Amino acid sequence: MMKIVKNPPPSSWEQLTKRPALDTAFLEGTINNILSRVRNGGDQAVIQFTKQFDKVEISNLEIPLETIKSAGDQLDDELKPAIQTAAANIRKFHAAQANGLLDMETSPGVQCWRRSVPIEKVGIYIPGGTAPLFSTVLMLAIPANEAGCKEIILCSPPGTDGHIHPAILYAANITGVTRVFRVGGAQAIAAMAYGTESVPKVYKIFGPGNQYVTAAKQKVSQEGIAIDMPAGPSEVAVLADETARPDFIAADLLSQAEHGPDSQVVLVTTSETIASETASELRKQLSRLPRVQVAIKALENSLAVVVPDLETGVDFINAYAPEHLIIACKDDEIVSERIINSGSVFLGNYTPESAGDYASGTNHTLPTNGAARAYSGVSLESFQKKITYQKISAEGLVNLGPVVETMAAAELLEAHKNAVTIRLNAIKSTIS
Amino acid sequence: MMKIVKNPPPSSWEQLTKRPALDTAFLEGTINNILSRVRNGGDQAVIQFTKQFDKVEISNLEIPLETIKSAGDQLDDELKPAIQTAAANIRKFHAAQANGLLDMETSPGVQCWRRSVPIEKVGIYIPGGTAPLFSTVLMLAIPANEAGCKEIILCSPPGTDGHIHPAILYAANITGVTRVFRVGGAQAIAAMAYGTESVPKVYKIFGPGNQYVTAAKQKVSQEGIAIDMPAGPSEVAVLADETARPDFIAADLLSQAEHGPDSQVVLVTTSETIASETASELRKQLSRLPRVQVAIKALENSLAVVVPDLETGVDFINAYAPEHLIIACKDDEIVSERIINSGSVFLGNYTPESAGDYASGTNHTLPTNGAARAYSGVSLESFQKKITYQKISAEGLVNLGPVVETMAAAELLEAHKNAVTIRLNAIKSTIS
Repeated sequence: MMKIVKNPPPSSWEQLTKRPALDTAFLEGTINNILSRVRNGGDQAVIQFTKQFDKVEISNLEIPLETIKSAGDQLDDELKPAIQTAAANIRKFHAAQANGLLDMETSPGVQCWRRSVPIEKVGIYIPGGTAPLFSTVLMLAIPANEAGCKEIILCSPPGTDGHIHPAILYAANITGVTRVFRVGGAQAIAAMAYGTESVPKVYKIFGPGNQYVTAAKQKVSQEGIAIDMPAGPSEVAVLADETARPDFIAADLLSQAEHGPDSQVVLVTTSETIASETASELRKQLSRLPRVQVAIKALENSLAVVVPDLETGVDFINAYAPEHLIIACKDDEIVSERIINSGSVFLGNYTPESAGDYASGTNHTLPTNGAARAYSGVSLESFQKKITYQKISAEGLVNLGPVVETMAAAELLEAHKNAVTIRLNAIKSTIS
Repeated sequence: MMKIVKNPPPSSWEQLTKRPALDTAFLEGTINNILSRVRNGGDQAVIQFTKQFDKVEISNLEIPLETIKSAGDQLDDELKPAIQTAAANIRKFHAAQANGLLDMETSPGVQCWRRSVPIEKVGIYIPGGTAPLFSTVLMLAIPANEAGCKEIILCSPPGTDGHIHPAILYAANITGVTRVFRVGGAQAIAAMAYGTESVPKVYKIFGPGNQYVTAAKQKVSQEGIAIDMPAGPSEVAVLADETARPDFIAADLLSQAEHGPDSQVVLVTTSETIASETASELRKQLSRLPRVQVAIKALENSLAVVVPDLETGVDFINAYAPEHLIIACKDDEIVSERIINSGSVFLGNYTPESAGDYASGTNHTLPTNGAARAYSGVSLESFQKKITYQKISAEGLVNLGPVVETMAAAELLEAHKNAVTIRLNAIKSTIS
């Protein structure tokens, strides 16, 4: 089931680390149609698409505040405190990400500073389906709230009964979401990008979704609406030496594999024994899982790579740039310092990826599909912009002005030069 | 020439702050052709496009290190120290943007931390044309170098003599650019996105360019190559009260207008006198400019808005979200604290935008076209990713594990739950 490759030459790594191509071009017609109909038709178009795709007739899109506030009553007594504990950890880790004010005199009389400012209006998309993804509400709304965003809009598709799962509403209620709408799919992205009578237009859209949601986010990002990051199937890589436990590794690989048939699962190990024992543990544990068919399909793309030493293993991991990386090695901390391409890293035998998915405090919205080479996961900063400022005194301009004049003239931008010259002349005439 | 609008009602602001639509869809065929030919043909395709578009036959793409190192010899004695002073200020302001290590115990036994890691390979595009934009080399290569990027590739089109201007090479040499290629246009973006025999593939591409470059960057960003930000024509807004000087304002508006016929120029003022005097100063100064035709065209889209008070002026500015904002008001610092949507802000009468364009220390690569609502300008962080880490002790998992199990079960993700359960069972059996 899991393909084991021994000591592959570096020349083969690009092929080995390749993800299946995600082509959403064939959706373009459908997406363009949904976007333009919502843009022009507003709420009515959204209501129509909700009937067509979600099979439910609704007359109003917004979930009343009362419903949101009382959603916790419908959750069992274990789940509520679990969500609260996770929320507290996530809040702690994200609150600490606030940047201090940067303020300095770069040269005499030239003061430069920088301020982090919340994005005023943000939108969060939470997929529907059988499982309510309330954990993603925590991961997106908590940093939005900590950043100080004024409007935090949440859209999620209604079930066929017209409702949104109370766990999603409860998570929204305790994290500072300002308004919730029962709208899903590409029409939800369109509503948040363009605004409708009910749904406010936002400046940045976050959250996972199916291929329609992904394609719609990509499309509106071309029109100036910011999005969190490019989306792709979830991935985990495990880097293991002989101290790792095959039963733990197998459990971690399966927790990734149950996400969907296109999930990516890779084991890189210095130990052939670990590779083969993990393969047999996988077979053993798989049979006990409810989502066995999904996991089997995902494991078909899985890979165990046996490497001659940890150094090669680290190089392979950096070439793969996995969303999640588990380092199950004796010297996990030393190894972790050599990782340059990954979204989030889990160290040691007692740190399963699912801890970070829910409750350790780090964010679970992470770059997939190799994007970790250039992208970070969602953080407090994803909900802020940084504005730079400068204030130059008359003396400062007397000092620095000639530098600007010389450079502007060399770039043949005379008016740029003149904006300095006219001021320097005014300063001279005041002095003399 | 400059249209003056008095006390426009807020309902008209959306229309007033609208930029001309940037439609590059008609370029799609051309861009797709260039991208796919470079992807498949490598250097030979690039050389062919260089002949076709840049009208020059070259046999090798890379500029030899010797040429780069000696480029300063061709610059005059004023320009070199000017570039060095600007570079020092820019380096100072960007070096201070480094984030400290974030490291905390979010709950007992659960250690979470975050590290900023340089993007390994980045590409910088510098446009060609009559004026050598060496200032943009400083703005992009300095933060790349400070961030610790290993490969900093620069592409710029050759002139018809096959050369790149020595000021660009000099700026590259003093800022830590690792390799320079004489390639321009969409073929340069393709070469950096896919790699050729000569040009290494990079993970993120920065820099301004014409509509072909912009469209190519947008296209490769859909394919997983990160880009700095969406591009649009440059903009300045001036917020002025009665203490402002119309001759300074006019000089600033013109320095923006000379960038191109599609540049955006807006004056927001509480004083009708300032508005009309600025209009006549514009006419006066315009006649003295070499790029008068370009500036006249840009000023046709320009706008002076007279507002009843500064508060309304600030609201209008936030609705417009300008790339550059000059605050020429008595209480400039107080006013600046209410700005939430702008790329970079210039305070007082002695801080022309051109100071920030070249030498104050802030970055001049900034969000245009209203993108300042959700985007920041380029900074040190644009060249880094943040990787999160977590390490949980056995005791930590005993504490936090049940929270993860409860949440995973509620999301119907049994394998996620099991990755915790299997470890908790192992811990229990060790203890007992």
